Formats: sequence, structure tokens, C-alpha cells
Amino acid sequence: MVTDRQGLKSIPFPGASATLIRAGARRTSAMKFLFLVLDGMADRPVRELGRKTPLQAARTPNMDFLVSSGACGIADPVAPGVPPGSDVANMALLGYDPYEHYTGRGAFEALGAGLDLRPGDVAFRCNFATVDESGVVVDRRAGRISTEHASVLAQALREALEETDIGAETLFANTVQHRAVLVLRGEGLSRAVSGTDPKENGRPLKPCTPLDDSPEARRTAELVNKISELARRVLSEHPLNRELPKPANAILIRGAGVLPELKPLGELYGIRGACISAVALIKGVCRAAGLDVIEVPGATGSYDTDLDAKFSHALSALEGPYDLVFMHVKATDVASHDHDAGRKVWFLEEFDRALGRALGRLDLEETYVLLTADHTTSVRTGKHEGDPVPVVLAGPEVRIDDVRRFDEVSCSRGSLCRLRAIDLMPIVMNLLGRVERFGF
Amino acid sequence: MVTDRQGLKSIPFPGASATLIRAGARRTSAMKFLFLVLDGMADRPVRELGRKTPLQAARTPNMDFLVSSGACGIADPVAPGVPPGSDVANMALLGYDPYEHYTGRGAFEALGAGLDLRPGDVAFRCNFATVDESGVVVDRRAGRISTEHASVLAQALREALEETDIGAETLFANTVQHRAVLVLRGEGLSRAVSGTDPKENGRPLKPCTPLDDSPEARRTAELVNKISELARRVLSEHPLNRELPKPANAILIRGAGVLPELKPLGELYGIRGACISAVALIKGVCRAAGLDVIEVPGATGSYDTDLDAKFSHALSALEGPYDLVFMHVKATDVASHDHDAGRKVWFLEEFDRALGRALGRLDLEETYVLLTADHTTSVRTGKHEGDPVPVVLAGPEVRIDDVRRFDEVSCSRGSLCRLRAIDLMPIVMNLLGRVERFGF
Repeated sequence: MVTDRQGLKSIPFPGASATLIRAGARRTSAMKFLFLVLDGMADRPVRELGRKTPLQAARTPNMDFLVSSGACGIADPVAPGVPPGSDVANMALLGYDPYEHYTGRGAFEALGAGLDLRPGDVAFRCNFATVDESGVVVDRRAGRISTEHASVLAQALREALEETDIGAETLFANTVQHRAVLVLRGEGLSRAVSGTDPKENGRPLKPCTPLDDSPEARRTAELVNKISELARRVLSEHPLNRELPKPANAILIRGAGVLPELKPLGELYGIRGACISAVALIKGVCRAAGLDVIEVPGATGSYDTDLDAKFSHALSALEGPYDLVFMHVKATDVASHDHDAGRKVWFLEEFDRALGRALGRLDLEETYVLLTADHTTSVRTGKHEGDPVPVVLAGPEVRIDDVRRFDEVSCSRGSLCRLRAIDLMPIVMNLLGRVERFGF
Repeated sequence: MVTDRQGLKSIPFPGASATLIRAGARRTSAMKFLFLVLDGMADRPVRELGRKTPLQAARTPNMDFLVSSGACGIADPVAPGVPPGSDVANMALLGYDPYEHYTGRGAFEALGAGLDLRPGDVAFRCNFATVDESGVVVDRRAGRISTEHASVLAQALREALEETDIGAETLFANTVQHRAVLVLRGEGLSRAVSGTDPKENGRPLKPCTPLDDSPEARRTAELVNKISELARRVLSEHPLNRELPKPANAILIRGAGVLPELKPLGELYGIRGACISAVALIKGVCRAAGLDVIEVPGATGSYDTDLDAKFSHALSALEGPYDLVFMHVKATDVASHDHDAGRKVWFLEEFDRALGRALGRLDLEETYVLLTADHTTSVRTGKHEGDPVPVVLAGPEVRIDDVRRFDEVSCSRGSLCRLRAIDLMPIVMNLLGRVERFGF
């Protein structure tokens, strides 16, 4: 059953005029959009690949098939030459200008962890970490503590926070392995505070300091420092930590953020959208944009992720009530952070095969598929870089160009030319007939 | 000797770990950038060149070599169709948005003349000129008076300004030939005043008038008019002028400007940069951006300039402590102002040969080279035009495209596509690993 823009059910009617209405609905509102984002897929020429980028070196017949039936281009994630964070880059892909809307990472982490974030809350990304007696961070990830162990410690910390009057309401939740989220709730808080994470092992825990002169920032910094101390005390004493080779006896608190004011995509375009990602931060960005999060068993955010399962859930969602599925795949970025060009090429080819299987189930007469990266991650530097990313957009009414290969250079000759990532969403929503006219 | 981002000297050490440090520095911070700007190089198709632009008509194997190992594109100096002044165009190339930062030509002229310009000062570009008894400008350049003669007259005018109480502190300096700079210093000045230059021979000197209702503009206009009258009186009486065929018996005052607030490139990107140009205005723009000025003997700003000497100084600076050298060559613009297409082609080929000799000394594994024009200057109109300029960027990690020829049309098919001149600096700084990440 298909629902059109006005929410009218579109079911077969006996009369001719009703048939016309139904045909109209299919042409516009029933069109679907599969948004495929490979994290850090774009790269620079790599010496060990004979000066090709991993995308240029990989055999990707199915991406190339999309290119042959699509329009290509390159996109600047935020601005030419500016390396974006993952939060900022994915905000931009969803159509929100980060220069206008970005309010820090913590809010996305909290949303991604499933917490109910409210206006006024200040949220932080946290790590369980191992700290020695003098306060030096020995392992920023507490030996990549298991999620099960972290859940036990998180529960202990929550109980301690409830029993102690630190001066504000708090929420604390662990997500995957060492990762966790802290939310401060109440009047008079600010996100203008520094983090306690020294960013490198072998350095002391840092005190949280206010970043401006406001009483709100001073108060928030005091609260963070109180929680940091409480966590050290409670976690150090916890019996579980005596059994762990690297006790999770502290939390590192960083990335203060508040709920960004984003008009949901549903409201902007009258669509129902969902997100598939293994990464809490990305889920959080998507939740902030009003997308539902579909959890996929086997989606790990690493090389062993179940790509077929992700595609299968995405296609089912599109066959069902969703107009848009934003499907994010992390391992390309992991390969670059690991400085592993060969692995990046291998994973791109793995993805390509999974894409091929998915395309067998997908009707390009009724679905637009956009494939791109959120940013460039260089295999050499292991960092996000500010280079543009390749884009291909396939679907029934795209202006097909003569690009034949999906890579950073080939796509630059495409009919989309060079644009900003925030332009991609309106371009596809326009093809779906969902962008309001400006002017009479 | 190479200096890395933290200012550490990077010299060969015996130990292995020191070697690693050096290797790291070479990979990112020690990468260099040669920014080559040919003034007004870009052009429109010229009838006498068989409807080719001078760049299309010229034989430029070395520019084409850069293209073959680089990424190409076209850039709009400020905005599509808008003809930029030299100051505005070069500001943009250095990465500063002129719509945000431009505060008039005079400041750049003063900085380029080596004057110590301060916040609050109002600076003017001046010409020594020949004026008849009725105040009509007979020659706006006083027969292109020699720099030596102009220096004598400038000294006389400075002495007169010191002896006279006109109501503000003044600085006056001549630069090359008829060109000079005037600075007003003190409280309550404004750059909102018109110039005294009638812009054409045969017209009377104009009074300086305030361009807004502020008392500051009124006061500044009065001061300029006092100085204009004083100059006429002092210069007319000067014995040197009796010997000159076209006496420099007046100064034309125009282009009021104040010091722009530009965050220096060194602060923005942690680099040390230098500029090589024969043109005071360009030197001034570069000084305002925090670049050092390297004076090159034989750099004339005309057809007879010593290109090898300029390249040699540029490469030595890059082999030394500088990360960036901005090298500006003027004669292409001169040829267009002279409506001389053949001469423009000839000079482009001269430049290309000098570039070839320089490339023999330059390691493209360690240096990014960007070649472009600051703007289009039309051989036919003799004026700056608002057409885009060709760009080629070569260096170790550029995404090489399949453009093979350096000209306005070929470059438009390159992998940089079409961008704004202000985007070029961040694009290269990103390749040098020097742009801060936005977001987490």
C-alpha cells in the first residue's frame, strides 16, 4: 500500500479518474530513494596502488553500472579543502548546512545511544578508560572492554549518580565496547566547556574548563569535574575491575553538544525516512534529522559487517512504508584509519558484490539510488581530508552522462559537475517531486 | 634546512627515531607550495589569433607538462562575470573573500611601498602628474617621470608637509616612476572620500569630496584638498621641474583605503610564506596577508623582467625556511593593456621556457605547484574582465585528470571543475595537511 504526499491511501479504484489519480501518485510520491554512504571511501592517489586511489584500483562493475545509468559529479562535504568530522559530513549529506546548524558531537552520540535528549540538555561522548594512580591515562579504551562488562559498570555509575547530589539531573548510557554517553539536564548549562580526554595514552586526565566567561560554562565545567571524580572513585572500587586486565576505572568526557534545531526531513519534504548504520554517531545525526533507526543484526561497523543483511533491511524498508533509506557503511573509513590500501580495495569490491545482489532486487524505474562518501579519508595520513567525494545518482529521470567508471576523477566529468554535499538532498527530493516551488 | 610546523629544525640525525621524526615532517609539514600567478593571463578568443585566446595560441610545453601531472579547473576571481581589480583578485587568490575584507586600494599601495600602516590610518594611491595653469591634467603620469626625479620631488613634498600644519600627521613615499603613496594618520579619519584624479588627460583636477555625511569623511576630504593644493604650489616652484619636458607639478590622489583585518596565513595555516612581485600593490596585498616580500633584482613588472631570477629566488626560498612562495608576473597583463596579442603570446612562451628551467630544479614529490591568472585581461578591450581563469595544480597527491593542455577551455574539463578563487588556498593547504577539521 502506497501513501501519497497528502496522506491519502492510494488503492485501486474501479473508475477511470481514480486510475489517473493512482498513476499520478506513483509518478511522484511513490518514488523511493536509497542513499548509500560509504564512510571515508574517497581517497588520494596511493603510491602502493600505482598512484591510483583505492576506488580507481578496485574492480567495481556494479558501481560502474550505476554510473552508466546515472549522473555523476563530485561534492565538497562542507567547503573545498575543509576536512569534516563524521557528524558534520553526514549532517551535510542529509541537507543541513553544518555552518548554520552544528552544535557539537555529544548530542548526536546521545541520540545515537537512544537517549531522549531535550532542549537545554548538554550531552557528552565518553570513553571507559584505564587510569593509573597518579591520574595518567594508560589506555583510552580500557583494553576495548566488552559491551557486557561496560554495561555492568555503567549501571554502577548510574546508581552512584542517583545517590549523589551533584547539582543536576544526569543520564549515562554505554553503547558499544568502551563507548558511552553522558547527559546533563537542568537550567543554566552550556556546551562551551573543554573535555577531560588527553587524546593520547600516557598523559594525565585533564580538568574540564569553561571556554567562555558565562556562569553557565563555569557551572557545567564544575559538574563535569565532579562526575569525573565520582566515576574514578566508584569504578576503582567496583569488584568487576579487579578481574579485568585493564580496569575501566575512569571515564573520559568530551565533545559537549546540545540538541541541534533541525527541521525534520519528514516536515521538509513530506517523506518517511529511515537510517541503517552500525555507528551511534551516525544514527544520532539521522535521528536529529527525523529519520527512524532500523537496527540490523550483523551490522558491525567493521570489515565483517553483514552487507547483505543491511541491503536486505534497506530494500524491505523501501518496499514498506519508507520513502528514503540512508544506509551508511563504515569499513572503508576503518581501512584508511588502518593505513591499509589493500584492505580498502578488497572491501570496496566486497561492497560492490553486495550492491550487485541488491540491484537484482531493486527497480531503478521506481527508485533513485545515490552512492557517495561522507568525506575523504586518506590511507596515507589515516585522517579525514578536505578533498571532494565522488557522487553517482541513478534512477528513472536522471540526466545520464557519459561517465563510465565510479571514482574520484571520472565522476568529476559528470553532468552534476562540482557541488556541495548539502545540495544533494534537494536534488533528489526534486526528482521525487517533493521540493516546494520558490516564487509563483 | 627544513622547518616543520612546530618550528623544529629538521636536519639529519644519526638515530633511527630522529629519522622517523624527519620523515614525518617531510610527509606533511615539510611539503612546499609554489603559487604562480600570471597577471591578466586569461583572455577571450582574439580575431587576429584565429579566434584563439593567447594561451590557446602559445606553445607552452612546460605548462602542459604541469597539466599532464596535475588537476585542472577554472576559477572565478570573485564571482561569475564580475571584473576584479588587481588588489581584489590577488586577495581572493590568497584565500580572503574580498566581499568581506576589502577596504580599498590605498592600504595595499602603502604596505607595498614599505610604509608602516596602522589601524585608523587612511592611505591613498598617488600619481605625479602634469597640470596646466588652469588646473587641467595634461599628463596623468608626468611623462612617466623617472624614479630618481620622482624621489627628489617626493622629498620636497615631505619637507613641505612637515613644515605646514595641515591638521594631521602625513606620510608620503614615491615607489616606481610616477607612482606614490600618501598616508593620513590621526583620530577621526574616513576612507569614504572621492579621488582628485579625473582619470583622463584633458580634464581638470577634481576636488576631493566626502562620500557620506560623517564628520570624519568631511574632515578627510578637507585634508586631501589642502595637500593637493600644497603639492601644486611646492612642486610648481621646484627647480627640477623647470628641466623636465613634462613637469611633475601636481599629485593625483585616489583609492582611499584602510588596513584590512586579515588573519595572517601564518596564523591560519601555520606556514611561513613569501611573495615575489615587481608591483607595489601586489606586494602590499601579500604583506597584508602576512607574507614576507622578497626583492628580486631584475624584476621589472614588464616584458624585460628577469624570469629566471624570480624563479631562482622563489626556489631558494622554498629550499630554505619558506613553505609558500607566491610569485606574481606582470607582463601578460601589460600586453593586454597594450592591446598586443602577439606580444602576449610571445611572453607566455618566454614564461613557459623559464618555467621549464625551474621545473628542472623542483621536486614535484615534495612541492605543489599551482599556476593560474589573477583575472582575465582582454587584449581587445585592454581591461580586466569577469571571465573565469584557468587553473592547474600539480604535486604528489593531486587527483590527476586527463586534461593535456593549459588554456581557458581545456582546463574547464578538469577534475577541479569550476570553483571560486578563494577556494584555491584551502584546497592546497589541505593537501599540505594544514587545514583544521570542522566537527568531530
